[in-house]
Amino acid sequence: MIDLVIQHVDVLSDDTVIRDAYISVNGGHIAEISTEAPKEAAKETIDGKGMLAAPGLVNTHTHIAMGLLRNYADDLELMDWLEHAIWPAEAKLTDDIVYWGTQLGIAEMLRSGTTCFSDMYFFMEQTAKAVQETGIRAVLSRGLAGVAPTADKALIENKELFTTWNGYDDNRIKVMLGPHAPYTCPDDYIRRVIALSEDIGAEIHMHLSETKGEVENVIKQTGKTPIAHMNDLGLFDRGCVAAHCVHVTAEDMDIMREKNVRVAHNPQSNLKLASGIAPVPEMLAKGITVGLGTDGSASNNNADMLEEVRLAATLHKARLYDPKAIPAQTAWNMGTIEGARVLGYDDLGVLKSGQRADIVLYNTTGMHWMPRYNDVASLVYAANSSDADTVVVAGKVLMKHRELLTIDEERLRAEIAKIHNVFAN
Amino acid sequence: MIDLVIQHVDVLSDDTVIRDAYISVNGGHIAEISTEAPKEAAKETIDGKGMLAAPGLVNTHTHIAMGLLRNYADDLELMDWLEHAIWPAEAKLTDDIVYWGTQLGIAEMLRSGTTCFSDMYFFMEQTAKAVQETGIRAVLSRGLAGVAPTADKALIENKELFTTWNGYDDNRIKVMLGPHAPYTCPDDYIRRVIALSEDIGAEIHMHLSETKGEVENVIKQTGKTPIAHMNDLGLFDRGCVAAHCVHVTAEDMDIMREKNVRVAHNPQSNLKLASGIAPVPEMLAKGITVGLGTDGSASNNNADMLEEVRLAATLHKARLYDPKAIPAQTAWNMGTIEGARVLGYDDLGVLKSGQRADIVLYNTTGMHWMPRYNDVASLVYAANSSDADTVVVAGKVLMKHRELLTIDEERLRAEIAKIHNVFAN
Repeated sequence: MIDLVIQHVDVLSDDTVIRDAYISVNGGHIAEISTEAPKEAAKETIDGKGMLAAPGLVNTHTHIAMGLLRNYADDLELMDWLEHAIWPAEAKLTDDIVYWGTQLGIAEMLRSGTTCFSDMYFFMEQTAKAVQETGIRAVLSRGLAGVAPTADKALIENKELFTTWNGYDDNRIKVMLGPHAPYTCPDDYIRRVIALSEDIGAEIHMHLSETKGEVENVIKQTGKTPIAHMNDLGLFDRGCVAAHCVHVTAEDMDIMREKNVRVAHNPQSNLKLASGIAPVPEMLAKGITVGLGTDGSASNNNADMLEEVRLAATLHKARLYDPKAIPAQTAWNMGTIEGARVLGYDDLGVLKSGQRADIVLYNTTGMHWMPRYNDVASLVYAANSSDADTVVVAGKVLMKHRELLTIDEERLRAEIAKIHNVFAN
Repeated sequence: MIDLVIQHVDVLSDDTVIRDAYISVNGGHIAEISTEAPKEAAKETIDGKGMLAAPGLVNTHTHIAMGLLRNYADDLELMDWLEHAIWPAEAKLTDDIVYWGTQLGIAEMLRSGTTCFSDMYFFMEQTAKAVQETGIRAVLSRGLAGVAPTADKALIENKELFTTWNGYDDNRIKVMLGPHAPYTCPDDYIRRVIALSEDIGAEIHMHLSETKGEVENVIKQTGKTPIAHMNDLGLFDRGCVAAHCVHVTAEDMDIMREKNVRVAHNPQSNLKLASGIAPVPEMLAKGITVGLGTDGSASNNNADMLEEVRLAATLHKARLYDPKAIPAQTAWNMGTIEGARVLGYDDLGVLKSGQRADIVLYNTTGMHWMPRYNDVASLVYAANSSDADTVVVAGKVLMKHRELLTIDEERLRAEIAKIHNVFAN
């Protein structure tokens, strides 16, 4: 018996579309994609007529529970926003609040075609629990701020998170260490993070070169850019995901290429927080691996990865006055297979036999899908994230025809309404 | 009897939200917004529970039938794209094709919360017919290219379009003259357009200063910027909507302010075609009226105005490193009331008694709407255009709970499938 068959579906595999095909899934992986029906019977069959199967979107950088602070405070100077809105609100966070905030974010991501996310936040045991229960794929990092009173405790928590969860369910959950940023982590603390990463074999996820101000301050303090400084400290020696990299120099990019620093590009958050536009075509030309992320929904203000794919495809064209700067296929790959590479998965992000079965079926009957000349261009330039009809992660169906199967949406709504009162008052 | 009552709905009126209210509509206008039920009976009642009523989005610049060439050719140099893809395809256009292409675009716009659009294209009698039948609001311009063999005929057609349709159905349809752009309209032709506009009393809709190349060429030929040159020709003397204005100088903006040139800002098209980013905060600071548009779906690639609102709110923040560059409310206004002003409606784009009844009910039960701290921020930064549940134009219900009432979608799909074959082969 095959675990799952998706039948009569158009399948986007690399840059070609196989029409009216069958996807067979076994043991969490794609067993076969064929235009002929599998001979073996299936435990579960999904009809994909009128749909396009594509790899699930990979959100390489977020703080997913911050969906709770969506539209809470906007259009403010960064430090004003943090000091007078976000940090006071975050002081009210509890295990329970983060658990439901994570459920909210996972529900939103599944509903918009995202099957994997990389998170950096607090109360990460709760995030892991929500990931475990809902069935989504995640890479989790405990946010580590060396300047905070919780600096030591956070390191212990991140180590425990790694011990408990890294590798869970055939690597459906992985754990990294999450030093927050140069401006919250003094050099001594970074050295402790690096020592811990050597000790337990964990990779690192860090905000780097997000704003001009950050870069200027690090240069003032060390005489070096954040990338050069972190490289000298040894941060990149055991694998690192660097979020943002908006203000990186050509020399920084050479270091990133040499040390295989993988980049989480968050175009919408970078726009909304007025950080700038990252030099992504330049990074790609150097051979740096770049994926996409939404960042937290307090600075986005949603977890819609299709918006990031669209921005990645269009934003750099205008910055460089070059309509070929990032073609549709490149943007799509950043949202899927390249994002998977950023997170250390080498068998995820493309629909092919042997790959992990993280699959989204897009309903292609909407007006914005007509006519249908090029499905990659449709996804990148025209599709709506609500076209995601059915979502499979690690071979399990988590959303079927817009119904979430592992999340109780009514309960979730009620819990979020309660939490709303905590922050609104 | 009141024509229409929308009950138990949250109403966004200017920047405040009136909870659990009643909107009464009579004769195509909003009669009253109140938290008390109207005493008179209503011919039709819509339940707005769980919904947010907001003004319909105003698309100030498009070539709506170009939805037929959505995803047909992308990521090309502008002239390569026009000469080898778009123009050869447009040579196949017929009355019938443009009629169905317009229906497709109208269906897509209604489904994504747009209630009014400004169009510039060919076969505009067909566009007018589709607008008449579907009930959407539109401002129509026949595209006029002085360098084309159809130059004289097009002027006659635009005049006829004006005579037949301008003012139709209490100004649900208006007509402007549509000189295409400086690079397709020699000075002599512009003078004829201006003479016609004086003759019949029509305003003008034109592409201006879209690309650096256009501006450089006009400066080379005339010693003046396109804006200064057109001003000297007298183009702005009887009312003008200028699409794009990506590359305008401070002096250009002074002219635009003085002559009340209204701007259609098309951020996504400007990104995708690598035109650049228009200096919108600078225009607003000068007091210029700026609305938003999608441009044609061949360069976007959809007619989703909420994407334009979001880009307008975020793009300029990053360009200017200023998180306050365009706040949410300003972007929302550009998508609604300011867009209406661009198109010459002074009683449209905000939900208040006396205003034209172009209303969208957004379903607020989606995950991306939770929690709900600020409805304007929700619309601008988090909402999905598919949240548009019910759409009213000029007091008539055109979409009710996602069902289009004036468009036969099955027939439309079949016609588009036929047209697909015309262009794909």
